[in-house]
Amino acid sequence: MSCSWGTELWDQFDNLEKHTQWGIEFLERYTKFVKERSEIELSYAKQIRNLSKKYQLKKNSKEEEEFKYTTCRAFLITLNELNDYAGQHEVIAENLSTQIIAELSRYTQELKAERKSHFHDGRRAQQHIENSWKQLESSKRRFERDCKEADRAQHYFDKMDADINVTKADVEKAKQQAQMRHQVAEDSKNEYLTYLQKFNKDQHEHYYTLIPHIFQRIQEMEERRVGRVRESMRVYTEVEHKVLPIVSKCLDGMTKAAESIEPKMDSKQVVESYKSGFEPPGDVEFEDYSVSMKRAVSESSFLNVRGENRRRSRSKLWPLLKRNKFGYKLMCGCVTCLILMLFVNTILNISVLTAT
Amino acid sequence: MSCSWGTELWDQFDNLEKHTQWGIEFLERYTKFVKERSEIELSYAKQIRNLSKKYQLKKNSKEEEEFKYTTCRAFLITLNELNDYAGQHEVIAENLSTQIIAELSRYTQELKAERKSHFHDGRRAQQHIENSWKQLESSKRRFERDCKEADRAQHYFDKMDADINVTKADVEKAKQQAQMRHQVAEDSKNEYLTYLQKFNKDQHEHYYTLIPHIFQRIQEMEERRVGRVRESMRVYTEVEHKVLPIVSKCLDGMTKAAESIEPKMDSKQVVESYKSGFEPPGDVEFEDYSVSMKRAVSESSFLNVRGENRRRSRSKLWPLLKRNKFGYKLMCGCVTCLILMLFVNTILNISVLTAT
Repeated sequence: MSCSWGTELWDQFDNLEKHTQWGIEFLERYTKFVKERSEIELSYAKQIRNLSKKYQLKKNSKEEEEFKYTTCRAFLITLNELNDYAGQHEVIAENLSTQIIAELSRYTQELKAERKSHFHDGRRAQQHIENSWKQLESSKRRFERDCKEADRAQHYFDKMDADINVTKADVEKAKQQAQMRHQVAEDSKNEYLTYLQKFNKDQHEHYYTLIPHIFQRIQEMEERRVGRVRESMRVYTEVEHKVLPIVSKCLDGMTKAAESIEPKMDSKQVVESYKSGFEPPGDVEFEDYSVSMKRAVSESSFLNVRGENRRRSRSKLWPLLKRNKFGYKLMCGCVTCLILMLFVNTILNISVLTAT
Repeated sequence: MSCSWGTELWDQFDNLEKHTQWGIEFLERYTKFVKERSEIELSYAKQIRNLSKKYQLKKNSKEEEEFKYTTCRAFLITLNELNDYAGQHEVIAENLSTQIIAELSRYTQELKAERKSHFHDGRRAQQHIENSWKQLESSKRRFERDCKEADRAQHYFDKMDADINVTKADVEKAKQQAQMRHQVAEDSKNEYLTYLQKFNKDQHEHYYTLIPHIFQRIQEMEERRVGRVRESMRVYTEVEHKVLPIVSKCLDGMTKAAESIEPKMDSKQVVESYKSGFEPPGDVEFEDYSVSMKRAVSESSFLNVRGENRRRSRSKLWPLLKRNKFGYKLMCGCVTCLILMLFVNTILNISVLTAT
């Protein structure tokens, strides 16, 4: 189903000019569309990045505690994956502008230039045939006028020739005048014929060679433009398609993070963070004042006693304990410290036993 | 690797209160995070929808022409697929708020209430043991005092008993006094013993039954909370994962649209839109004024003549043509009209032939 603008649209110069102009506008509209899409992607990525940044747990004081909990670690991973996800939308924006916007803008300029030159050629051809037509018309009018003149001269000569009262000289003068006029008419007839042939040749060349050739080039230009639109639209979807697997990976990362959350682990972490290592207080002993009255009256309250017992026993048993704002805890939750501590304890307990 | 807060954190009441409070805050922070994410998705979807709407070709006047071109149809499909794509991000926002935000907000309220009741129980238990301790202390001090009194009474009796200058009556009185004081001390000793047993019983129950039981429930509450976070984070990624295949379908739709663009088709469409159906003008004939001078002088210019010829021949040959602002064209580009017209033409041409 091929077709040729050169032959089928020979008389549609203006419409082709309009249509190709529309084609360029379409190209510019599509480029603008892609540009706005890529801006949307950028701002989306920016918002997602800010969200991820905003909820990062600051590595400080109380909060570093949080990293011990699987929930916090999982949330942290989610935020990082989210950051990568944002990156993918930046990639989309980036590729849209390099692979489409930049390309099409450049191409549109080329296209405008090419279109201009084609229609310039067309106009020149049209000018040429117009001029050829004007020549023909004027030569035709001249021929018509000269025929009238020759005709009039002929009538005058016939009139003189038939009049017996005119001199031979006058008749001769009219005869020469008539012959001269006939000659002039003959000449302009030939000129008219020449211009007629020239015009018909020009016109044929115009409609069967020049215009078809120019319109053919315009058609090829248009088909290239359509091809470019096709290619750009293909790239447009390709750019988005490419990031899908990576987006999917980000999501898998988040899923794995979620599944890494272990309620029991976090319970254990709470124990490691806060356990004092003491036994609950034992029974209070009976103090028999009826045996001896020589002892100070204890004014201590329940909790103080407990507190003191604790502190005393602690300082004897847990030399490795250090204070933090929540009370007493192991150096830290890590296994190394635990082992180290158990070791040191054994030593201490042995020394205590030998001492007694 | 199980562990029990009840036994291991028996003395960490305040820290558990702090930790569970932190847990609730974490839950609220995560909910806020999901909320902000879903808002970002909504605004993104809105921008994409507007973009799609903005570039829709308006179905009017000149522009309906455009729908004849494969480029325009492809662009239209792209815009519609883009609209569906936006819809998918709305689905994400929607599911985030129904399946996570709403759920977690409700759950957080429950959790706050449960936590409150557990620590209320804890405080009551603590209060109880405090009181038991106070009773013990006061009974102990009373016993101590009474012993002193009994002691003093005893000394006084011994002193009187050893003094030869006092009356028997006075000795008897001091003796009874001493015996009475001893009896009182005996009684408060028994009371002290009773409260001592009671306290030791209470204390044992407090540290080995009540507190472990309450802390156990707090631990279970915490582990449920962690489980909920786990579930929410899983749903969070699931919600996004679900739309990926649909997004992918949208992109496939766009790719198909791009590939449906056919440069040759559009060239043909241009012909169908603008073709006048006339042949280029033939040769201009010679007008021999030298034969007869009795005809009007033609003042017509090249284009007018063509125009007139065209209009004349057209009205004879193309009764189905109608005017549009671009000149003459077929009723429309569709096949039916083409066939109809070819048919009518044949009829007309036959009639023309028979007429001559």
